[in-house]
Amino acid sequence: MKKYNFSAGPAILPAEVMKEAGAACVNFNNSGFSILEISHRSADFSAVLAEAEALVREIGGIGEEFAVLFLSGGASSQFFMAPMNLLDDSGKAVYVDTGSWAAKAVKESKAFGPTEVLASSKADNYTHIPKGYTIPADATYLHLTSNNTIFGTQLAEYPETDVPLVVDMSSDMFSRPFPVDRFGIIYAGAQKNLGPAGVTLVIVRKDLLGKVDRHIPTMLNYNTHIEKGSTFNTPPVFPIYVMMLTLRWVKAQGGLEAVAKNNEEKAAVLYKEIDENPMFAGTVTQKEDRSLMNVTFVMADEYKELEGQFLEACKAAGCMSVKGHRSVGGFRASIYNAMPKEGIETLVKVMQDFRAAHA
Amino acid sequence: MKKYNFSAGPAILPAEVMKEAGAACVNFNNSGFSILEISHRSADFSAVLAEAEALVREIGGIGEEFAVLFLSGGASSQFFMAPMNLLDDSGKAVYVDTGSWAAKAVKESKAFGPTEVLASSKADNYTHIPKGYTIPADATYLHLTSNNTIFGTQLAEYPETDVPLVVDMSSDMFSRPFPVDRFGIIYAGAQKNLGPAGVTLVIVRKDLLGKVDRHIPTMLNYNTHIEKGSTFNTPPVFPIYVMMLTLRWVKAQGGLEAVAKNNEEKAAVLYKEIDENPMFAGTVTQKEDRSLMNVTFVMADEYKELEGQFLEACKAAGCMSVKGHRSVGGFRASIYNAMPKEGIETLVKVMQDFRAAHA
Repeated sequence: MKKYNFSAGPAILPAEVMKEAGAACVNFNNSGFSILEISHRSADFSAVLAEAEALVREIGGIGEEFAVLFLSGGASSQFFMAPMNLLDDSGKAVYVDTGSWAAKAVKESKAFGPTEVLASSKADNYTHIPKGYTIPADATYLHLTSNNTIFGTQLAEYPETDVPLVVDMSSDMFSRPFPVDRFGIIYAGAQKNLGPAGVTLVIVRKDLLGKVDRHIPTMLNYNTHIEKGSTFNTPPVFPIYVMMLTLRWVKAQGGLEAVAKNNEEKAAVLYKEIDENPMFAGTVTQKEDRSLMNVTFVMADEYKELEGQFLEACKAAGCMSVKGHRSVGGFRASIYNAMPKEGIETLVKVMQDFRAAHA
Repeated sequence: MKKYNFSAGPAILPAEVMKEAGAACVNFNNSGFSILEISHRSADFSAVLAEAEALVREIGGIGEEFAVLFLSGGASSQFFMAPMNLLDDSGKAVYVDTGSWAAKAVKESKAFGPTEVLASSKADNYTHIPKGYTIPADATYLHLTSNNTIFGTQLAEYPETDVPLVVDMSSDMFSRPFPVDRFGIIYAGAQKNLGPAGVTLVIVRKDLLGKVDRHIPTMLNYNTHIEKGSTFNTPPVFPIYVMMLTLRWVKAQGGLEAVAKNNEEKAAVLYKEIDENPMFAGTVTQKEDRSLMNVTFVMADEYKELEGQFLEACKAAGCMSVKGHRSVGGFRASIYNAMPKEGIETLVKVMQDFRAAHA
């Protein structure tokens, strides 16, 4: 039986990527050496790093005003690195609180300068994206979380503003096009759409840097990594290599327009079933806020006691890791770029069969 | 032709580890999923993390007074994290400057409190380990670099002192036994003896923490990672898995006593040839400071012009990455745990053949 990985992250990657990564662990580039043992300054790995950067620039339309960095420490390290590098007491960082990760980013920022939450949906357990807030024109940056993995919400559009956007794009990076010229920093832990855990893609507008005069440890200063092309110290070689393979795959899909179209179609199939099947209910209260990456839903009230049975039925059909996050309960189907349509069709069939058996 | 990887790092790993890692990229634990796509909170990965910690404790004899952490950011991040977590203006950090990496650690410490260099061999281009210094009894910690990858020197013994040792053990971790009870923090980027690049092993004596009251970003506070068992955020799953496989291999070798004996024998063969062959000269001025991990040597003065030819001869015999670091020149053979005796015998044969042809 074919199994489908609906895990929220680390998450499904293209099958051909995982296969090629496995082969490179034994013999990389026909060198006779493993990708796991080669120097980060070798010609073979320098080519990987250069190709990864070129693919990020090509796929995302990222110009030379931005640096493209491959760092470690996850998005959680960017929560403090962004304000540490950009914010001081003369400025003001503004945040939109759309979920647990956004709230963590707010917390880290407060140590580095004035930090204001413009809007929050916390009181509603983050079941929608707050709107209608005013962005202060003098803000240093506006921090957004583009997709909220736990709560199944996603920004449908980025605000139009001259304030630089600092965006945690961990869970929808390169799943759709984005308006590059509005961004100050984009960061994304790789382990959803970009590759395995262990590398963080950081795209930084270079002219924003060097304006705060606090002491910044060398490894935490974006300029360190810009000057050394992400090899100030030994970078996470294998995770970067697998990211490069994944970016090749994204390009081969036809780039972001094609990937986005595919993601919209996949999500539509699943949301349609959630809306039509009386046994289930979506958790996001505003349909325009529904995530195309993490589809969160619960059993309808009258069927709550069947939740465990439904999860068993999913497993029996090969749909793995459909259990929802404890903050929301119910179910979460994470359907990142690499999730094939057949995975979603299989899950929808489980839902339909479950309705036929129980409704 | 069999090829041997003498790279200083990332470096050779046991062949069976690289093979098993490759297989897990396609099908991990017969789950039908890749190690690259599974959740860091899955039962399968929790077992990996638990086994990795248990192996570190068993191999190193690490008791419960220490936490064992699997972090990212490399040893370079520990350069500032150690003082950030341990040092303030009421204390004093003392360092021994034995090479470029030690000097970088000194630089990062200065931002966090009084930092004193007790001894340095910089004026001699780090060709020996400074000795005869006095450790102030009131120091917060003494920072040492146990092995200097670039300069081919290694501490033969750790000083006997009640001041907690904070040691960068990146390039000789688990290559020999060490006196655990003298240590405050041990840290080691994995990419020499422990696994691939992308994970840093950090062993911290828990009672040293929580004594400074500066703001520490959540991700930089050792206690964050202690409380969450290295899963506060998504850890580098695959690098940790490969470290676990490598630790299994270390244990199967017979543990640190057996590994150390093997390393001593391997190094002795190579140093014997360097000392006996008139075409070559070791770069370390005191024999007791010679590294068992990184063997640095140059062409003797009268044969300097044959350096390029010797490197070609190494390559032709399958001995790869023998070129020395630019700070020292000449040659460097890195012979970590996983380098088989045959690799060293092959290199020695190249040296002997070169002597027969040119001396």
